[in-house]
Amino acid sequence: MEQPSQEQKPSYPPPQQTHMELRTAENSAIYVLPKLRSMKEANPHLTLLDVGAGSGTISVTLAKVIPDGHVTAIDVNEAILPRARAIAEMAGIKNIEFQHGDVYKLPFADASFDVTFCHQMLTHLKEPSDALREMIRVTKPGGIVAAREGDLETECVWPELSGLLKFHKFAASMMKAAGGSATGGRQLLSWALKAGVEREKITLTYAQALIDRVRAGRLREGGIKAGMVTESDLEEMATHWEEWAERKDASIAMMHGEVLIQR
Amino acid sequence: MEQPSQEQKPSYPPPQQTHMELRTAENSAIYVLPKLRSMKEANPHLTLLDVGAGSGTISVTLAKVIPDGHVTAIDVNEAILPRARAIAEMAGIKNIEFQHGDVYKLPFADASFDVTFCHQMLTHLKEPSDALREMIRVTKPGGIVAAREGDLETECVWPELSGLLKFHKFAASMMKAAGGSATGGRQLLSWALKAGVEREKITLTYAQALIDRVRAGRLREGGIKAGMVTESDLEEMATHWEEWAERKDASIAMMHGEVLIQR
Repeated sequence: MEQPSQEQKPSYPPPQQTHMELRTAENSAIYVLPKLRSMKEANPHLTLLDVGAGSGTISVTLAKVIPDGHVTAIDVNEAILPRARAIAEMAGIKNIEFQHGDVYKLPFADASFDVTFCHQMLTHLKEPSDALREMIRVTKPGGIVAAREGDLETECVWPELSGLLKFHKFAASMMKAAGGSATGGRQLLSWALKAGVEREKITLTYAQALIDRVRAGRLREGGIKAGMVTESDLEEMATHWEEWAERKDASIAMMHGEVLIQR
Repeated sequence: MEQPSQEQKPSYPPPQQTHMELRTAENSAIYVLPKLRSMKEANPHLTLLDVGAGSGTISVTLAKVIPDGHVTAIDVNEAILPRARAIAEMAGIKNIEFQHGDVYKLPFADASFDVTFCHQMLTHLKEPSDALREMIRVTKPGGIVAAREGDLETECVWPELSGLLKFHKFAASMMKAAGGSATGGRQLLSWALKAGVEREKITLTYAQALIDRVRAGRLREGGIKAGMVTESDLEEMATHWEEWAERKDASIAMMHGEVLIQR
């Protein structure tokens, strides 16, 4: 298979860049912080690679978490590097360097980093498993690879104005047309398995996971009575839940909204 | 308007009940714990009402957080109460009582509780705003109302077996047919506003929120060039994003998948 390349990845226009610069380790990578802190206790001189760091706002906040460690932040888009360096300088962060690099051909030796990290990057790629395999290669045995990817198809908006629903479909189409995926979040586990990782070494997290079964009484009886489902539909559902439960790449999730109201 | 009633709400068959009993404050109500802990520091004798507590696994774990406080847990389904009491007893929790109650007509005086809580309850109701208004009534001024609701339409599953996709549509149809909503998560803010709460008193949380704009260069030009969108579509999107940004009930969210891989 021909080696894919990130070279054609375009830079982002100013409005999107502004949105991305709101990202920090606290709001975008909180799932990795407990592990990072426990690794730091064992070894304060951790090395971390941030792949597809863009303007580096997450990289800089990760560097703050490991003040005696070192962060290497790369992006395939050379034009973003001066902006990233300026952001690190403004934040007074010294233990970081930014350089050019392609995730499919990382310019590092095997086992170079304790932590290899990416955020909202794999979902833009044609071959996310190849990228993950390369990220695993440069990670030290005993280290971790961390990835967080949006699942654009689950995006929801309220109120449901027609232009916004149209925008959602359009954005997903564009993402797919560019070779990426609009269902990255739910596929992340299957990508990691395809990259050759054993299931036992992967921790997958979502806001909430649930399994309901279709052979239970109420849903089945009510559905048939209301003409919403047939016996053969129900059999297909039950069979597929069983097949799903046996698969190593099985994942399921649903987003919740939460409100706190001050009386 | 005729007062709605919860009386017809059915009990859950065993498989669904088993799933629900996996719920705890830690996995289902983590958004409320920091506020609960800070309120407890000011007043250890907090009173908390859990509405629609079911078998009470969340209520019991909330009671553990306020050992010198007291939890009242109600459910419209009287048949579940013995099970809930047994779970509390097994957990050794004494500062809790379970009783029958309908969220539309809470059997408590105004301003009875410091915290009024519900989980995955409003989304099953025909009139969620009426329920929230009643929950606010029994909450002390200065106290909080906390609600967390799934947004079933955002549920996603991998691998995408046809029976599972069919199940998803079926479950959403059944929920709507029973008078509930399959888009509760995204509507939670608008329900709270409809219940008469000022926007400034509401904290809304999701895993992740984002705004992208449609008048930016790349998406617009690429979309038109690829024939995926027209100028008038784009104008509708832009106008609706502007209208959305002005609305007090505006909310947007997208789920992310996260993996940690051990090298």
